[in-house]
Amino acid sequence: MKLVSYMNEGRDQLAFLHDDYLFDCDLVHPELPNSMNMFLHYWDDMFPIAQEVNKAIVDGRIGKQRGVALASMRLLAPVPFPNSCRDGYAFRQHVAAARRNRKVDMIPEFDQYPIFYFTNNHSIQGPGDIRCMPDHFEKLDFELEAAIVVCKQGRNIRAEDADKHIAGLMIMNDMSARRLQMEEMLLNLGPAKGKDFSTVIGPCLVTLDELEPFEVPCKEGHTGKAWNLEMKCRVNGVQVSLGNLADMDWTFAEILERCAYGVDIYPGDVIGSGTVGTGCFLELNGTGKLNDPAYQEQWLQPGDVVEMEIDGLGTLTNTIVKEDSDFSILARKK
Amino acid sequence: MKLVSYMNEGRDQLAFLHDDYLFDCDLVHPELPNSMNMFLHYWDDMFPIAQEVNKAIVDGRIGKQRGVALASMRLLAPVPFPNSCRDGYAFRQHVAAARRNRKVDMIPEFDQYPIFYFTNNHSIQGPGDIRCMPDHFEKLDFELEAAIVVCKQGRNIRAEDADKHIAGLMIMNDMSARRLQMEEMLLNLGPAKGKDFSTVIGPCLVTLDELEPFEVPCKEGHTGKAWNLEMKCRVNGVQVSLGNLADMDWTFAEILERCAYGVDIYPGDVIGSGTVGTGCFLELNGTGKLNDPAYQEQWLQPGDVVEMEIDGLGTLTNTIVKEDSDFSILARKK
Repeated sequence: MKLVSYMNEGRDQLAFLHDDYLFDCDLVHPELPNSMNMFLHYWDDMFPIAQEVNKAIVDGRIGKQRGVALASMRLLAPVPFPNSCRDGYAFRQHVAAARRNRKVDMIPEFDQYPIFYFTNNHSIQGPGDIRCMPDHFEKLDFELEAAIVVCKQGRNIRAEDADKHIAGLMIMNDMSARRLQMEEMLLNLGPAKGKDFSTVIGPCLVTLDELEPFEVPCKEGHTGKAWNLEMKCRVNGVQVSLGNLADMDWTFAEILERCAYGVDIYPGDVIGSGTVGTGCFLELNGTGKLNDPAYQEQWLQPGDVVEMEIDGLGTLTNTIVKEDSDFSILARKK
Repeated sequence: MKLVSYMNEGRDQLAFLHDDYLFDCDLVHPELPNSMNMFLHYWDDMFPIAQEVNKAIVDGRIGKQRGVALASMRLLAPVPFPNSCRDGYAFRQHVAAARRNRKVDMIPEFDQYPIFYFTNNHSIQGPGDIRCMPDHFEKLDFELEAAIVVCKQGRNIRAEDADKHIAGLMIMNDMSARRLQMEEMLLNLGPAKGKDFSTVIGPCLVTLDELEPFEVPCKEGHTGKAWNLEMKCRVNGVQVSLGNLADMDWTFAEILERCAYGVDIYPGDVIGSGTVGTGCFLELNGTGKLNDPAYQEQWLQPGDVVEMEIDGLGTLTNTIVKEDSDFSILARKK
């Protein structure tokens, strides 16, 4: 089942997505809620009903005349108001490449615990324009990731029990302003402000049942579900990143175990995987893997179009827009 | 005006605090809301009414028979459900001492921009027991700070305009599990899980008008309000920390400017000052400033009582409690 949120009369409307048509959940079944937030909070009750309705949409018993064309609507983030947002660090290839670029060895602690950090859940957005301030354009970058959203409260969850807290998967673009990030990380803290302007998720939430055909064993010595899903990013139509979700060294289940240690996780908590190998300019610039050798160093510019595609999860498209401002918080240039 | 939230019939009740009595806001004036969340969202309309009511309580026109004794009630965090939680890094003395302990020089970038990070707003709590898991006891620490809460939405706010977004001040104890923190920071990320179990605020929110007598100029070259408020921490009755809020090198107004760059801040956003100099065991252990020279290294233990006192803001008291569990997420010991 693919679920989207779209803008309808000033609020977020939850809908099934099928064959480029949107079917409002509460319209096609009176017991289903009209928002993702409500759906996640009553997941155990709502999910079986939604599965039946989705079947009826897919096999045509609920016809297209009861939906609206996707193209005529403005999609929001599928989870428009996440309760919190964490980002993991699960792909060894990305970490190793980033360290190689900095001429430091791979760190053995990477394999000992699956770290994450908190980012701003109020700067989550969906497809469309990404508005950036002048400082963000100092080494503006995308990060190609997948994300989960939690559908079941829990605390002190073991990895082997954690997958049942996951509603489904989405594409995530963890936008990054590298100069702001590097400034704060010089002081051994963050990333925080370097990521605190736009984190994109979408276009839809794909529930785990629909992803069963893609399931593969996770890496040896690890616990939890894994999926063979190719991940790509194109900038202005040129493919720059290519990876696979099955390359996650830490599973979402293991990341969830750490998240829920000594605290509650809640429906609506969004958690990113961390960047896949080759999944950002920062890594590509250092490894010389960019398609166009004319670029010494490539960063996102106003007007650039970023398209992320993950097998089974769709395509997430955004355009970089510069805000009309000269406001800066960067360290004053001498 | 001093505002508290307390547990009343299973929900958070907003009340004025005066002379150890609590006066439910909605009971003493029909237009006032019964929760801090509502009060912050309608701050501009509610604050003038609340000021008048508070005057009537202070001068006895509203008598104690209309309140309840503080001692009979369980205080929550004054902002029980913060919209988000950020923590700053505003005191140079703390940063310099921490770096000296690690035998590295003070970093000049400290004076160039006021960094912060996001922490878990769902692990905010008030006075009382702090429940800790086994891993938290591997170098369990307090951090003595002050915090503000935002009462007015805004974006791209300049420091000179930022103080009007601040409702008031509270004491903050940013509890820290140093081994978890050190593990994640080895991977150049965080702090995140090392702080993600309990952040204590309270006992009350003191609005800025009441703090006017304490206002002093901020440090040279900086912008925003500053307050001469002595800060102390006692562990089991022994004073271990002594500082002053006027020692903040970066003001809350400047931290807010950074927070709101390119994103909205919202009513209910909580922002900590960062740790005052001498304000945690991590710093004290390295500088040999602990009162009891018998300790090589002191960390919090089950049963310890942590009391934080800031002039004008009251005393925040918590007891460390060990959860009955042997669950661990630390790197496996070899």
